[in-house]
Amino acid sequence: MNFKRYLPILQWLPGYGRATLSSDLLAAVIVTIMLIPQSLAYAMLAGLPPEVGLYASIAPLVVYAVFGTSRTLAVGPVAVVSLMTAAAVGQIAPQGSPEYLGAALVLALISGLILILMGIARLGFLANFLSHPVISGFITASGLIIAASQLKHVLGVEASGHNLLELLVSLGGNLGGVNGPTLIIGLSVLAFLHVARRWLKPGLRKLGVPARPADMLTKAAPILAVAVTTVATWGLGLDAQGVAVVGAVPAGLPPLTLPGFDSGLWSQLFVAALLISVIGFVESVSVGQTLAAKRRQRIDPDQELVGLGASNIAASFSGGMPVTGGFARSVVNFDAGAETPAAGAFTAVGIALAALLLTPLIAYLPIATLAATIIVAVLSLVDFGAIRRTWSYSRSDFAAMSATILTTLGHGVESGILVGVGLSLALHLYRTSRPHSALVGLVPGTEHFRNVERHRVETDPQLAILRVDESLYFANSRYLEDTVMELAARRPSLRHMVLACQAVNVVDASALESLEAINARLRDAGVELHLAEVKGPVMDRLKNTPFCRELSGCVFLSTYDAWNALHGGARTLGDVCGADEPAAPRQSSFKFE
Amino acid sequence: MNFKRYLPILQWLPGYGRATLSSDLLAAVIVTIMLIPQSLAYAMLAGLPPEVGLYASIAPLVVYAVFGTSRTLAVGPVAVVSLMTAAAVGQIAPQGSPEYLGAALVLALISGLILILMGIARLGFLANFLSHPVISGFITASGLIIAASQLKHVLGVEASGHNLLELLVSLGGNLGGVNGPTLIIGLSVLAFLHVARRWLKPGLRKLGVPARPADMLTKAAPILAVAVTTVATWGLGLDAQGVAVVGAVPAGLPPLTLPGFDSGLWSQLFVAALLISVIGFVESVSVGQTLAAKRRQRIDPDQELVGLGASNIAASFSGGMPVTGGFARSVVNFDAGAETPAAGAFTAVGIALAALLLTPLIAYLPIATLAATIIVAVLSLVDFGAIRRTWSYSRSDFAAMSATILTTLGHGVESGILVGVGLSLALHLYRTSRPHSALVGLVPGTEHFRNVERHRVETDPQLAILRVDESLYFANSRYLEDTVMELAARRPSLRHMVLACQAVNVVDASALESLEAINARLRDAGVELHLAEVKGPVMDRLKNTPFCRELSGCVFLSTYDAWNALHGGARTLGDVCGADEPAAPRQSSFKFE
Repeated sequence: MNFKRYLPILQWLPGYGRATLSSDLLAAVIVTIMLIPQSLAYAMLAGLPPEVGLYASIAPLVVYAVFGTSRTLAVGPVAVVSLMTAAAVGQIAPQGSPEYLGAALVLALISGLILILMGIARLGFLANFLSHPVISGFITASGLIIAASQLKHVLGVEASGHNLLELLVSLGGNLGGVNGPTLIIGLSVLAFLHVARRWLKPGLRKLGVPARPADMLTKAAPILAVAVTTVATWGLGLDAQGVAVVGAVPAGLPPLTLPGFDSGLWSQLFVAALLISVIGFVESVSVGQTLAAKRRQRIDPDQELVGLGASNIAASFSGGMPVTGGFARSVVNFDAGAETPAAGAFTAVGIALAALLLTPLIAYLPIATLAATIIVAVLSLVDFGAIRRTWSYSRSDFAAMSATILTTLGHGVESGILVGVGLSLALHLYRTSRPHSALVGLVPGTEHFRNVERHRVETDPQLAILRVDESLYFANSRYLEDTVMELAARRPSLRHMVLACQAVNVVDASALESLEAINARLRDAGVELHLAEVKGPVMDRLKNTPFCRELSGCVFLSTYDAWNALHGGARTLGDVCGADEPAAPRQSSFKFE
Repeated sequence: MNFKRYLPILQWLPGYGRATLSSDLLAAVIVTIMLIPQSLAYAMLAGLPPEVGLYASIAPLVVYAVFGTSRTLAVGPVAVVSLMTAAAVGQIAPQGSPEYLGAALVLALISGLILILMGIARLGFLANFLSHPVISGFITASGLIIAASQLKHVLGVEASGHNLLELLVSLGGNLGGVNGPTLIIGLSVLAFLHVARRWLKPGLRKLGVPARPADMLTKAAPILAVAVTTVATWGLGLDAQGVAVVGAVPAGLPPLTLPGFDSGLWSQLFVAALLISVIGFVESVSVGQTLAAKRRQRIDPDQELVGLGASNIAASFSGGMPVTGGFARSVVNFDAGAETPAAGAFTAVGIALAALLLTPLIAYLPIATLAATIIVAVLSLVDFGAIRRTWSYSRSDFAAMSATILTTLGHGVESGILVGVGLSLALHLYRTSRPHSALVGLVPGTEHFRNVERHRVETDPQLAILRVDESLYFANSRYLEDTVMELAARRPSLRHMVLACQAVNVVDASALESLEAINARLRDAGVELHLAEVKGPVMDRLKNTPFCRELSGCVFLSTYDAWNALHGGARTLGDVCGADEPAAPRQSSFKFE
């Protein structure tokens, strides 16, 4: 058994040295400062108490350091997964109830088990069935929903709804109750974070601060906002004036929790857990691959499934919530110089210290500050440019993307993904069910054949060379049959039909029957069927079938061979096939009889 | 509006003459004789009173003659659809109840509406998603279930079960109650029909009877069995000795019936109706196409949907049951010389006369005779040879086929089809998610490139030509990325990577992002990316993308051009691209900047 593969920690821990340690420690300090407000905010987004966010940023990070293959991925609660958690758990129990907390633990556990099983079964490729436009549309829509859901905290009003429209209408109806101090805090933090994102780094650079510290300071802006607004709320007694605050948060290390094993609950949460697993995996693996490529490292997607799965299981046993690798914090970790997953473990220590020591201080942290942090973070996920680019590149990709966005906005995150995946698969199947094929002719002076409609090429009225541009399988074989027979019907002078098969990787049993039908029907019409450029593995299979025994024409190595043998109409079948056959070391054409 | 297309009767009725009339009349007489026992038997198989089978063979045939495009298809109750009807309606109400009858009418109505809507929306291609192995497996399994379900009538015992195993066990447990006279009738009819199928035609031919009448007489064997056993039962009073008979059948034309419009019932029957529609359509269209091809006629699958849909709606309003084009009776119709759909209308008149005049005579018809007729008919559908052939040709087709058979036998007809279609789609998607690609080299003395592992070809250590054998889309683009980067990592001397794209019909938005990633990562590794043989439509789209603007290499018309420009390593990028570009009337390579 390859221990290093299944325990990637063995790859880096033995060679761990002092220089690496100091790089990792520095990165950990910076990520910790960034992660504290994020953890609190995403726990709130998931409808959970703030300390759950901190707990989910401790044990999972340590476990990922042992099992994960990315050197710089930073694991923890992330916006989209928190939104999906809220949607799934919200159907089980009301927010604030012990059942709600328990369901979040179960969700993390199921999700972790699914991820590990997928990793062991090497099913990482399944994530590829989520196309880029679907993911991008889903993230944009989620960003809009999350931002809309946080607006009420910034305004200090009540609002609720099952989709974006309901949420905005409910918000509009309650605008009368806006709380002044809350609004001032919310807008100030929004403005500050927006300015910090936009101008802090260039400003600091102008003041002579080097690029990296300037970047780090910019990323630390949220913790500054948290500190300032907390102190202001405490000092001015704003909580008495209606500013909602986080309130008492228990100080201490994560509790040991035992997720429930109620089979009813498990089956209710299963689909949500599956979608959270896949979305979380896709987000995490794409961040991980991007960062690994920058340093010529590789990550192993199947082992990543195991690493993320183990992290989620750790979260479920330590009072946490579903986690995955986050984009922004991983980039910060990378930029801050993290060299090994130890940086993640050190970050966990930092968060643990925060959970022990800082929790009494955040009782006066205004909810509006967290909400503003979330809004600024998620609005950077909203990418309308991608919608426009997809529209101009491919209408069917655009269809899948807009279906994902509209369904997510109008009906929820789970339906959004399912509709997007379903539609993109259906469109793909529809496309391959009408395989592209082209009549080709010889490009003069070469041995190369191109589409007669797009290029000036030589052709022969007695000879049709049809290039088949797709593997032949059940969904498209009948269409090929129709194409060929229509071609034969349109050209009475036709004597030879060549199917050029360079793009055919597979001929399944249904397509084989269609080929048999084509051969028989063409023979009845006085046309011989030939094949050219049949690939080795395809030929190996066709060789022993009745189709090959009954093929009226020949199988040529290249289209050019077929052209030479058949064009001009001088030759008959007997001449063409099996002529220079037996002695040739590499057969250039062969017939099965 | 093209009336002739939507009312195919206009294509043949105006030119209808005396010669055609006599051909059609003769065919109608023969089909009527064959259809009477079949209609009674398939109604019984569907759990419906025998007259329903007759009714379903009257109005639907007339309607098909107006709307159908096949000249020789004979419509009516068929074995597989009757089995599916029994399965669907059996979940709604007990056999023999008025609700059972009513549900069968609703099933025919929904099925008819689905077919017509599919026809109007030109969705006939959806039937292609049922692969040959799935259909073949489904029919074999259905044949086995039908035969097993009829055994109890041959033995004169009770038996029931939800799948083949339960049915056989229940049958075995009741063997003690076998009714002697019933068994004698059943076995005699089985033996007679079997012998007739096997030896009657050759025997008659030996006696000097011409081929066609001999064939017709053979096909009429079931009506002979019906007549003889009915007379014997009546004459010997066998019904008093425990032989189950059809009993009193009302004489008369089909009643006008109004299917129910209960939305609960409609939604309960919807999936079953959809599957019956698709299976019925596939059966019908493949028979129709086979027969049409023999006479160089064509059928229009989308109009066939309309024709079959209208027939089913007619059935639902005239006391019938779901119908479709039957294989055996259509072949008989064709062989008997039917020239136009008028033959079908004349058959309807024949069946109507039978319903009016013959019904009193079949009161003494033993159920065992009908059961034996069904068993002999459906066992000819069971094709174990197809299972063996599929196994030896393709393991994945075999997997889909055996899943269909086992699920149909063990869990029922609807699950059987759904599992088969689902599995064959999943296997297809899995296959295309790992696209075949091959390193190719130049076949010496030609301009042709083949796989380096299968052919003796020229190669170059600085140049890798990777032939991509599949369209690039979301499910496989990441896999290509991995393949290319692994190849680059394995060959440190590599300077040029050419993707030969002759098999790439589509590059979707996800694949475009992968190509961008490949280009960037190869450039970082000091390798230039080139494309060759990009198809026109694909190039049209790529042209305006950032990928093409940033492509480190060139796009060559042919792989041979790429080889000439890049091999030997003498040239640099500047030399290669844009050299003989601007003036060339047909560009042989181009670069986007």
